[in-house]
Amino acid sequence: MRAIELQAFAVDRLVMAERPQPEPKPGEVLVGVRACSLNYRDWLMVQGAYNPKQKLPLVPLSDGAGEVIAVGPGVSGFKPGDRVVPHFFPNWSSGEPSAERFSVSMGGPYDGWLCEQRTYPAHALARIPDHLDFAEAATLPCAALTAWSAIVTLGRVQPGDLVLVQGTGGVSLFALQFAKLAGAEVIVTSSSDEKLEKAKALGADHGINYRNTPEWGRATRTITGGRGVDHIVEVGGAGTLNQSIRAIRPGGTISMIGVLSGPTSNDLLLPLVVMQQVRLQGVTVGSKDGFDAMLRAMSQAKMKPVLDRSFDFSESGVREAYQHMGKGAAFGKITVSV
Amino acid sequence: MRAIELQAFAVDRLVMAERPQPEPKPGEVLVGVRACSLNYRDWLMVQGAYNPKQKLPLVPLSDGAGEVIAVGPGVSGFKPGDRVVPHFFPNWSSGEPSAERFSVSMGGPYDGWLCEQRTYPAHALARIPDHLDFAEAATLPCAALTAWSAIVTLGRVQPGDLVLVQGTGGVSLFALQFAKLAGAEVIVTSSSDEKLEKAKALGADHGINYRNTPEWGRATRTITGGRGVDHIVEVGGAGTLNQSIRAIRPGGTISMIGVLSGPTSNDLLLPLVVMQQVRLQGVTVGSKDGFDAMLRAMSQAKMKPVLDRSFDFSESGVREAYQHMGKGAAFGKITVSV
Amino acid sequence: MRAIELQAFAVDRLVMAERPQPEPKPGEVLVGVRACSLNYRDWLMVQGAYNPKQKLPLVPLSDGAGEVIAVGPGVSGFKPGDRVVPHFFPNWSSGEPSAERFSVSMGGPYDGWLCEQRTYPAHALARIPDHLDFAEAATLPCAALTAWSAIVTLGRVQPGDLVLVQGTGGVSLFALQFAKLAGAEVIVTSSSDEKLEKAKALGADHGINYRNTPEWGRATRTITGGRGVDHIVEVGGAGTLNQSIRAIRPGGTISMIGVLSGPTSNDLLLPLVVMQQVRLQGVTVGSKDGFDAMLRAMSQAKMKPVLDRSFDFSESGVREAYQHMGKGAAFGKITVSV
Amino acid sequence: MRAIELQAFAVDRLVMAERPQPEPKPGEVLVGVRACSLNYRDWLMVQGAYNPKQKLPLVPLSDGAGEVIAVGPGVSGFKPGDRVVPHFFPNWSSGEPSAERFSVSMGGPYDGWLCEQRTYPAHALARIPDHLDFAEAATLPCAALTAWSAIVTLGRVQPGDLVLVQGTGGVSLFALQFAKLAGAEVIVTSSSDEKLEKAKALGADHGINYRNTPEWGRATRTITGGRGVDHIVEVGGAGTLNQSIRAIRPGGTISMIGVLSGPTSNDLLLPLVVMQQVRLQGVTVGSKDGFDAMLRAMSQAKMKPVLDRSFDFSESGVREAYQHMGKGAAFGKITVSV
Repeated sequence: MRAIELQAFAVDRLVMAERPQPEPKPGEVLVGVRACSLNYRDWLMVQGAYNPKQKLPLVPLSDGAGEVIAVGPGVSGFKPGDRVVPHFFPNWSSGEPSAERFSVSMGGPYDGWLCEQRTYPAHALARIPDHLDFAEAATLPCAALTAWSAIVTLGRVQPGDLVLVQGTGGVSLFALQFAKLAGAEVIVTSSSDEKLEKAKALGADHGINYRNTPEWGRATRTITGGRGVDHIVEVGGAGTLNQSIRAIRPGGTISMIGVLSGPTSNDLLLPLVVMQQVRLQGVTVGSKDGFDAMLRAMSQAKMKPVLDRSFDFSESGVREAYQHMGKGAAFGKITVSV
Repeated sequence: MRAIELQAFAVDRLVMAERPQPEPKPGEVLVGVRACSLNYRDWLMVQGAYNPKQKLPLVPLSDGAGEVIAVGPGVSGFKPGDRVVPHFFPNWSSGEPSAERFSVSMGGPYDGWLCEQRTYPAHALARIPDHLDFAEAATLPCAALTAWSAIVTLGRVQPGDLVLVQGTGGVSLFALQFAKLAGAEVIVTSSSDEKLEKAKALGADHGINYRNTPEWGRATRTITGGRGVDHIVEVGGAGTLNQSIRAIRPGGTISMIGVLSGPTSNDLLLPLVVMQQVRLQGVTVGSKDGFDAMLRAMSQAKMKPVLDRSFDFSESGVREAYQHMGKGAAFGKITVSV
Repeated sequence: MRAIELQAFAVDRLVMAERPQPEPKPGEVLVGVRACSLNYRDWLMVQGAYNPKQKLPLVPLSDGAGEVIAVGPGVSGFKPGDRVVPHFFPNWSSGEPSAERFSVSMGGPYDGWLCEQRTYPAHALARIPDHLDFAEAATLPCAALTAWSAIVTLGRVQPGDLVLVQGTGGVSLFALQFAKLAGAEVIVTSSSDEKLEKAKALGADHGINYRNTPEWGRATRTITGGRGVDHIVEVGGAGTLNQSIRAIRPGGTISMIGVLSGPTSNDLLLPLVVMQQVRLQGVTVGSKDGFDAMLRAMSQAKMKPVLDRSFDFSESGVREAYQHMGKGAAFGKITVSV
Repeated sequence: MRAIELQAFAVDRLVMAERPQPEPKPGEVLVGVRACSLNYRDWLMVQGAYNPKQKLPLVPLSDGAGEVIAVGPGVSGFKPGDRVVPHFFPNWSSGEPSAERFSVSMGGPYDGWLCEQRTYPAHALARIPDHLDFAEAATLPCAALTAWSAIVTLGRVQPGDLVLVQGTGGVSLFALQFAKLAGAEVIVTSSSDEKLEKAKALGADHGINYRNTPEWGRATRTITGGRGVDHIVEVGGAGTLNQSIRAIRPGGTISMIGVLSGPTSNDLLLPLVVMQQVRLQGVTVGSKDGFDAMLRAMSQAKMKPVLDRSFDFSESGVREAYQHMGKGAAFGKITVSV
């Protein structure tokens, strides 16, 4: 069984390796991987920036999808040929998060999906909705569920809410799609008018080019007639948080997502957070219950992830995929076809 | 100023009368009524079945819409010419209900909107969304807000939820529309295949003719793959509640709406409510905050109420409107043009 | 290994039997049972009234407590000598209920705890709080968790709320204790002034003898200054529900618990439920997350269950325990010492 | 009618002045002020640090209590002699906050309570619980309601939760009391062992002296067995937020209260907020519904505010009160007797 291994923290140390054939233990399923997808987390991981103490070699990528090859003893819900997608945190079935529920995740600290086969606990697998192919399904475990948790599980966005989504990365486009599905009005920010047009084609109601309008926090007040934005999906981190705090309405929610990079500015507007009774809500992927609910919603709406480019399952293909992610120019998800 | 008065509990005692010209007191607005709509509550009221102790004569109808003619001292938010729609419970601005917040409502115990002019507290008026005319706006105060409260405020329906709506009356059609807006999958029940087709044209995903399928509670299990319905909008009362209890999933919500008629059957399935941890949630219109949120959502989605027929503001027109409601054959709201 | 078996639906068919020594499979723990407790559910079960299709023989009782004797392969959280209490629904770890999560429970359909030893999944066991002995711990799985779910998880009772608890059975006394712990004011109803005095000694603020005051629903209005009760723990079923509906405030919650017995009266006040926006919330025990939270709260407050009488682990002792329960005169929980 | 006016931003520019006798307009009540209390907000206000644009002269202090002298036209709920306490935001009756609901507050921008008489809208007054005197009641509008909103309305603290309260200022002591009332376990931090002892006398379960233990965030892990704190009442601002982020459990809530002073450190642990799915919840006093619920809870529990010292209604008395506050040594609330 072949796998890509990260042997040192560098893109050119992603190496094709031969590994022993895995066998499903009790309660496990053996999955033949058919596609994987990349997240910003994976990009940081390869550079040693996510967790410098990560043990190597590591099979990278938290997100994949595939077909059941065999099931271990005691597994009754799946059979060979079933199309499946893994839940990101296999220990987090439902309810509130905890250290124990966060403790197991793939692509770091544990081996991920960039390989031909791997085993996974049956209770942490879900069936792929019929209208999605393997590449599309492979984009769901981290990026889609994070957006779902922000908009639905924790954000409780309702029809008529005004939602602002920063940029057009993987999580942001899913957040745009889920917010529209939930009946919200959506503002997207981007540095590119072209990407704003694409976002509008996906359903965005308003676009703000933050290169032209660096004080976009105030600019949103025009759209809202002064009322403020109900919900902001904050992915830019320290650099954009103050704009979000200016844009949010009293009592609104800013969902903080992803690895917020860079030092915090000295003048972070925390006093405004207090005085406007704003909620800053960290979001970390989500539970299996959330994953199942999201898959039901996507099936029902026949919602499709936005794919950018697909790469081959080869050393050069995988390295190219990472380099493409590093450029930050993708609109939608980058996948690897296994 | 002319008004229709209910002078005794009978449709043919709805009589055109001359009343003194109202003047707006401090905090009040004088509204020129342009349209009214009928609810099942109004139908019961005219027959003395809603509240036999109601003092007469009464100007009926809780729901209307019109244009601002003048504003009283201290009113700053409205000016003559503004198109406005009243909130159903003027004392219920927001938060939880209470006896005090329920105490004032129009069309009983207080005079309603079936007249040429009336005053109303400015804080209990809302602007009519631009895409709606007066007749459409007049359908919103009771029926639309009740549906909104059931689906959104209390029901917190989310994308992918399965919602069942009973029949095609005013509240039910709004509930269907709001549930679709919130990203849900919707089942409608009706005794008429023709109405089911119309409901599907409005967005319903499934129709069940309960004449052919009296045990429709069990029938829904097929649609849900055995999982059960997440949310049911129960308007049929005692006669249909057992079917709803059979259809609902463990932990699901049955919104109980309207004046549930008839005696309860002896074998009401309350034990199943307990054992399946079901929530039976009474719904009574809603607060002004809910009304405002609903109007924002309708504006944003350009959602239109479903109108059945319009009648004239004359004794004969109004009596016909009531008789049309009494037949129970309408699909959508019955209005009176003033 | 000895166990009491129910061999036919009758108290005198509770028979001591010899069963094979159980062995813990992977993920399981072997528990030496030290105490059990009886619930009304168990009483109905023995008479064939809970589930006439229950397969016999059955080891009865859902609730027990004991000591770890041995652990199966892969179990790391427990070791011999640990004092443990089982969660009622081993498949319901957290989140919303579902058919699958409700499917496994002890004392019917699966064998219960009235035996010397049994195995149980490690993930469904909790440690007994230090301040509780085995008999006290054995009262927690069904009665205490049901009360906790009603008051805390689903009821979200907060300081200053007014809570009414019906009677002085197992669930009701726990509900009284949890409501006081949450800072509420508590009314208890009973047919016995003596029991009302005992309830007051446990913290109840008010007692109503429903024998003297059959219209206790209206009587509560005096206590609340007309405002109504915020939360009612309804255990009496069809016979008392109308009183609860009269007592509850607009927007309040009636938690429906236990096996509501008897036919529903024809004049069930469902219209009032709708018009007062009341919530009728079925409650069925709860999840493991809820059980753990409850145990933390009890540990923190050093809260003790109320015990009535303890019986021996013998045919005669067990039959006596059931007969004692059947009389309905107990104040607090009936236990069996194993 | 005499009032203390702030005539320039300095404690010694608090000057006794004669003002015209106020008269209650429609819907208003004339209150004879009997006591006032100081908040940190008032301290900043006097120095021009809260709002440098505040127009002067200003009658300071948001919090007071008194007796009804007369009622204006249309007021039915109050009569002369009634003991009353004002709600902080008279425009915020209930529901979510908004710019409009935040727009009116006393002691800045509008004249406050440090005077002999003032009018107030009847709907924004509450009756003083019987067990409280005027000085005690005067501490409730800002400090107590802020703590209530943090712990109850927004925090939904439940029995068994572990709550950490920073310091022993006005809000923190109320938060300690409300958390205990709600059945929580409470940790208090302070720089003084003496104050920690006093906090324990009020019910605190644990004290941490942050002078001895500057890394108290990690220290709390010992108390929680590694689990983390469920809820933190953060009043220290930028300087302590990182300790709070280290102390909070995954999924926990940090309530951010007061005017968080000082620049944010460069290394604010926002990435941990995201990765642990923490909620940072700004809290700004609360609605009238919350105020009423809090008063009910305090009445029911006979809960008393902690008073530090009382000062006279004279120029020197008031200036001393402010200087006493400025020293930061008070344990409990500082009041002025009018």
